[in-house]
This record gives sequence, structure tokens and C-alpha cells, in this order.
Amino acid sequence: MSESRNVVIVTGIPGVGKTTVINTAVDMIKEEYGEEVLILNIGTEMFEIALAKGMIKDRDELRKMPTSKQREVQRLAGEAIAKKGKSARAIVDTHTLIQTENGFLIGLPEWVSRPIQPKTVVLIEADSANIASRRNSDETRTRDEQLVDDIRVHQEMCRAAAVSVGTLTGATVRIIKNREGLVEEAARELAETLME
Amino acid sequence: MSESRNVVIVTGIPGVGKTTVINTAVDMIKEEYGEEVLILNIGTEMFEIALAKGMIKDRDELRKMPTSKQREVQRLAGEAIAKKGKSARAIVDTHTLIQTENGFLIGLPEWVSRPIQPKTVVLIEADSANIASRRNSDETRTRDEQLVDDIRVHQEMCRAAAVSVGTLTGATVRIIKNREGLVEEAARELAETLME
Amino acid sequence: MSESRNVVIVTGIPGVGKTTVINTAVDMIKEEYGEEVLILNIGTEMFEIALAKGMIKDRDELRKMPTSKQREVQRLAGEAIAKKGKSARAIVDTHTLIQTENGFLIGLPEWVSRPIQPKTVVLIEADSANIASRRNSDETRTRDEQLVDDIRVHQEMCRAAAVSVGTLTGATVRIIKNREGLVEEAARELAETLME
Repeated sequence: MSESRNVVIVTGIPGVGKTTVINTAVDMIKEEYGEEVLILNIGTEMFEIALAKGMIKDRDELRKMPTSKQREVQRLAGEAIAKKGKSARAIVDTHTLIQTENGFLIGLPEWVSRPIQPKTVVLIEADSANIASRRNSDETRTRDEQLVDDIRVHQEMCRAAAVSVGTLTGATVRIIKNREGLVEEAARELAETLME
Repeated sequence: MSESRNVVIVTGIPGVGKTTVINTAVDMIKEEYGEEVLILNIGTEMFEIALAKGMIKDRDELRKMPTSKQREVQRLAGEAIAKKGKSARAIVDTHTLIQTENGFLIGLPEWVSRPIQPKTVVLIEADSANIASRRNSDETRTRDEQLVDDIRVHQEMCRAAAVSVGTLTGATVRIIKNREGLVEEAARELAETLME
Repeated sequence: MSESRNVVIVTGIPGVGKTTVINTAVDMIKEEYGEEVLILNIGTEMFEIALAKGMIKDRDELRKMPTSKQREVQRLAGEAIAKKGKSARAIVDTHTLIQTENGFLIGLPEWVSRPIQPKTVVLIEADSANIASRRNSDETRTRDEQLVDDIRVHQEMCRAAAVSVGTLTGATVRIIKNREGLVEEAARELAETLME
């Protein structure tokens, strides 16, 4: 069926525990339904496409491609992901907004998210203070108020980015809270979304 | 004039009192200007179009249409609404984000909102704690903190969705607060937007 | 190089001190790098284009143009800005959301922001209470709680608008805080973004 949408984009800022939630959900589905869920990565898809097309020789060259070529490869990566999602349930493990020194980089621009045709964009979220203390754990016990606030703003803006992707693609937007010590619950919600 | 935009999309999550605000505003305009305001519904427009085109026989079949057909009918519904809005002031009574078990469903995806060419997207909002107690009134007196927070997040994300629609269509975005016991004020603001 | 993106869109609601931040940043760059930064304005570009095309005779007529013509001129203004940004670093001094009596007007609709091809959308922000007291300073000492809250919501919605523009154009989104008495710091951040 050409219309089945099996791709779930899973996002979350550093420190929310995204990888653990994804892996736990994938294990649950394997155990309970005997089904394998693909975990896809936009960068890997881009690399494979650019390599196959002879545009690059190694991964390093990917970043050095001119912007217009990069976008073309991003678009093709989106299409490749959608194709894989026709025959299997798939997660795209990525970001909505990536914090850089010069502001937030858009992880899901239009030319990537449209071709993916995602079923759902999931936002894995955690308590901002918890994320801050996880990021800081080695250096300091004191909670940095500014950092907590920055994390809160980052998570809020990720929601807006996900809604923007939803408006363009029709994907549903689901917030999954990864509460301290309750990763199984978060994984259960993600598994439900994948199996829906 | 082919460029007049008379369609105002009115949204609000369950419990904000949207219907009362709409009806009161429509009554005000009838009384004060002797003008009828159309209250339109995307689902009804879709049903009429799909029926007229012989795509379905009853309303039940509408939901069962394949996604691509549904989108086509949604787009045509948007166009039909825009057409009705050329000759009369019209409200589209709908949602920006609909809460489901699997996350938020996008009420105004691009292929619906673009053809509507709305003048304004109105967000009827109410205090999150009030909405929670209205929803809970039968069952419990205790205010559920989690529910209040979820409602707050839902309303915030609806704002992002409205802004996204505004960016694509040029519609203005207006928040109208429906304050406890002051529905006339909210209706007055909506009437102003309609008569603008 | 046809792909260099030198245009930074700088936005901020009235009272954040946007003009001072922009001027200070432009002075810094002139002093430290000997480089002139263009400060562009969408309205001015629109006026020049419409005048050159014989569509209008004076600035007043710009607002009176039919919507579809206005959009066409806006689009051309965006293209003119992008062109200027190929050969020099440029700031577009504008707004994401403009507060009007009938809600927020979209400052960066799709047909303006796409042709600009911005490198970054900067949100100059300030503390909502500070903005409120700056706006009120002549009239009253008492801080209007409702005003502070409205300003907070306005700034939050501007973030959503910037993210929406980023999703369509790939521009990064940077929040720059203009803290009381620390305009040099804010200008330094803007200068970094411009020189990036």
C-alpha cells in the first residue's frame, strides 16, 4: 500500500535520554510482536546517497558540499527514508533544533521533512532541571538557573518546530515525558506510537 | 472583489467555551449590523464535496477514504470555504491541534489552510485551571495539577500552530481570552475581528 | 559565490532596544573589521521596486495596493534583499509579529522570507517586565501585570514565528538577550552572527 506511513521521527535535546527510550521501545516491540523496527539516521542516509552518486569519497566531504547540493542530498535522504518506511516500521533518530554557538540549527527543514512523510513527530522531553544536572553532574552540584531556563526555552522551541513540521506534512505531534526513573513508561508510549 | 478575505478561522481547545463565544458574536453582528455570519465546518464541507463527486455514500465513508483522497477533499473543502467567504463574512469553527491518544493531530495542515485564505486565525483561550475544573466538574473537586499543565502546554502549542498557518497564508493571529463570566467581552472582540 | 548567505534578519518587539543593539553591532564591525554592514528595510525595498516599476507614485500608495500586488512586491523586495546580501553583510531590520488592534500581523510570511534566504533569524529579547516599564515610564510607576504577561506571550509567539521561518528557509534561529545595561554584550553576539 503506497499510503502507509510507518516513519516516526523521534527527537529530543541532549540529556533527555532519547537513545535509551528508543532502544527500550525497539526491544519491547521485538519481544512482544516479534517485529524489527528500523532505526534510521538522516546523516547516514545522506552519506550513502552521496557516495552512491559519486558526489563524495568519504564522510568528511559531506559537510563540505555546497549548500544547494547538501539540500538536494538531504531531500533524497528523506525520500530514501520514506521508501524504507513503506515496508517496515521505522524510527528516524534526529533533532528538531540543534543548539550551536550561533543559534538553533533547524534539524527538520521543509525539504527533509516533506519527503519523509512522517506519521508522527515525537518530542522526548524531560524536566529542564534534571537535564541541567545530568549535563553538569561532573563539574558542579549547584544548579545553574540560567542553564535550566535555556533548556526550558530550547524544549519549548522544539515544540514549535515540531508543530511547523506537522503543519507541512500532516504528521501528528506527540510529547513523551521521560520522567526520572520511569524510562519504561516513556518507551511504552513510543512503542504504542510505532505500533499504531 | 476577488481579493476580499472574509474568512475567520476560530479555534479553541475543548472547555474554552468556543461555541458560546461564536454564537454570541454572531448574534451581536446580526443585531447591530443586520448581517448574517456563516458558521462553516471543514468536515461538513468535505462531506458535501465527496458526496457530490460520488466518492462516498455516507458520512462514515469519509474517514475510511485513503489518505491521499482525504487530502484532496480537504483541499477542495478549503477552496469551497474561501469561495463562500467572498460573498459573506464567515467563521470556520475548527481546531488547531486535536488531542488524541497518539499525540496532537494537526487541524489546519497546509493543504487546508492555504486554500481557505483566512483573514485571521483566532485562538479562543481560557485559564488552564478553569478549563481543567470545567472538564472535571462532575467527577472531582480536586484540581489535577498534571491536567492543568497539559492544558497549558496544549494551548501554547496551538499558538505555534496558528503562527505556522499565519506564516504560510498571511493571516493575522489573534488571541481572545474567554475570561470566567465575561463571555460578552470575548464575543465583542470576535465580532470586531469579523467586521474589520 | 552564488550560495553565500549574508543576510541576517533581526527582529524584536517594541521596547527591547533593537535599534541600539543593531547600531552598536554595526559600529563594532566597522571598527574591528573595517567592514560596512548594510541595514535594510523591507518597506523601503518594496517602495523602491514599486516606484521603479511605475506601480505607485508615492509611499502612501504602497499600502493601498491590492493584496495580490502587495505580495508580489514583497516577494520582489525579498529577492532584492537576497541580491544585496550576496556582495555584503546585511541586516534586515524588521518584525516577526506586529501587534495590531486585530491581532498579530505576520512580519515574515513565506513569500517574503523564502526569497530573502536568510542565514539567521535573530530574536532580540528583553525581560518582559523591563519592556513594560519602558513602555509605561511616562504614565505610571505601577507595573501592569496584564501588560507584562501580554509582552511575555508576544515574545514567545515571535519565537514560534522565527522557527516557522527557519523550517521553510533553513535559517538558524538565535535568541539574543538584551539585558538591562548590557547592550554591548547583545551587540557583540549580533556582530558574531553577522561575521560568522
